[in-house]
Amino acid sequence: MSMEGKKTAPIGVFDSGVGGLTVVREIIRHLPNENIVYFGDTARVPYGSKSQNTIIHFAEQIIRFLKTKEVKAIVIACNTASALALDAVRGEFDVPIIGVVVPGARAAVEETKNLHVGIVGTDATVQSGMYTKVIQSMNPRVQVAEKACPLFVPLVEEGFKEHPVTQEIIEYYLESIKQSDIDTMILGCTHYPLLRSKIKAYMGDRIHIVNPAYETAMDLKALLEEHDMANDGTDEPHSIYRFYVSDAAEKFRRFANTVMPFDVPTTNVVNIEEY
Amino acid sequence: MSMEGKKTAPIGVFDSGVGGLTVVREIIRHLPNENIVYFGDTARVPYGSKSQNTIIHFAEQIIRFLKTKEVKAIVIACNTASALALDAVRGEFDVPIIGVVVPGARAAVEETKNLHVGIVGTDATVQSGMYTKVIQSMNPRVQVAEKACPLFVPLVEEGFKEHPVTQEIIEYYLESIKQSDIDTMILGCTHYPLLRSKIKAYMGDRIHIVNPAYETAMDLKALLEEHDMANDGTDEPHSIYRFYVSDAAEKFRRFANTVMPFDVPTTNVVNIEEY
Repeated sequence: MSMEGKKTAPIGVFDSGVGGLTVVREIIRHLPNENIVYFGDTARVPYGSKSQNTIIHFAEQIIRFLKTKEVKAIVIACNTASALALDAVRGEFDVPIIGVVVPGARAAVEETKNLHVGIVGTDATVQSGMYTKVIQSMNPRVQVAEKACPLFVPLVEEGFKEHPVTQEIIEYYLESIKQSDIDTMILGCTHYPLLRSKIKAYMGDRIHIVNPAYETAMDLKALLEEHDMANDGTDEPHSIYRFYVSDAAEKFRRFANTVMPFDVPTTNVVNIEEY
Repeated sequence: MSMEGKKTAPIGVFDSGVGGLTVVREIIRHLPNENIVYFGDTARVPYGSKSQNTIIHFAEQIIRFLKTKEVKAIVIACNTASALALDAVRGEFDVPIIGVVVPGARAAVEETKNLHVGIVGTDATVQSGMYTKVIQSMNPRVQVAEKACPLFVPLVEEGFKEHPVTQEIIEYYLESIKQSDIDTMILGCTHYPLLRSKIKAYMGDRIHIVNPAYETAMDLKALLEEHDMANDGTDEPHSIYRFYVSDAAEKFRRFANTVMPFDVPTTNVVNIEEY
């Protein structure tokens, strides 16, 4: 592929389901000239309870699928897959691949003044301790408090974002971490940015909230510039966004329409096990 | 296997995860002499979003596994698998197999006076319309109202049974069906019996609540007596309950201990894809 071909080629983004759309939203906001191919593994969601070998196998299949769409770079927009599969697949494919954990961890390490960082995420993410490991590899003096908030994902997915019970559950989960001495907190699950304003209001001005979706978009921007692969937008009147899932396309589309700044027109179902 | 061997052989029970434990609980309560082998497919949960062919394939693997434990009968303690796989697997294996949908539907058809029945279940169950089909095949004059309550499962699994938000969400989901003219309502998801007392209190005395887990235990009892396979308990000092899962054994065990009337001592992980 010529360098010009590379510049207009799409970014591949994937997640176990719909959560990665918050990463797509940040990429669209900050890299508006880039075309995007999104894959949501809705037939095999959630990834959190599955073994590392299985997650690597899933990621390999999805990357092979995205490569058929001639992507120039891939973003793993899923905390579990970023933590468990990124190192394995990076060495296997001739396309740059980034995840969401490292950008989020680095932003927190740079932000914290008192070296106390909080992480909120799913049970699987918190049990893996992956954010703590990555943060402490960047700065061993940072202390990390992790808190699982397993109801946030179903509340967001079922449309309860504005319902009063969501506020109650935010307070229930976050009370102890608010009363700790953290000055920085990572939203360690791709669904959580959809609750960002409520979480931020509850945590107060003292605590800086890190959104790994935004940090990942910034890392992607730096990567594209570094490899001279950024799309300057001169070839196309507007960017093209395509959405693929492994099952239940209509439910995905309904949710996507509540997250994305435009209507998602069609979603294609892919038999991902064939890749 | 001799007839005596059959009598002391265990009952196989399986589900996509932990929900089927409510069926195990009813079997233990009403058939205390039976030994049980339970399999929870925690690596591939949830089944609701998967295709019929996939669910049949999963059920076949699990039945082959349960047959290695010499089970004398099998209970599919999962609404999705009962609806999508029961007919297919029944013809394939030389062991009696029952599901949870038919016993629940039949109890509702027998109970309703005004021929208006309500169903609550997961999104997948409600979208499949399977309870409506089975009920109307039993009595075409029965009208059925189905209501999806997708947050009930995560609320129960995350231990929010007694939290005030659960009461609020019960009222949010059930208000419309309470105000309809049903006189009978089926708890069409194996997790929902764990909220039974709260649901019953909200729905009031006018509406009879059908618990398919109980009805299934009664059908199993009738099946064992009909085939002269019931365990009279004379051979063993107490019944033996064994629990197998396909992933995340510790989380399963923790949840099982909140559902079962005894501590679940050990849970074994099985590589179900090998069967």
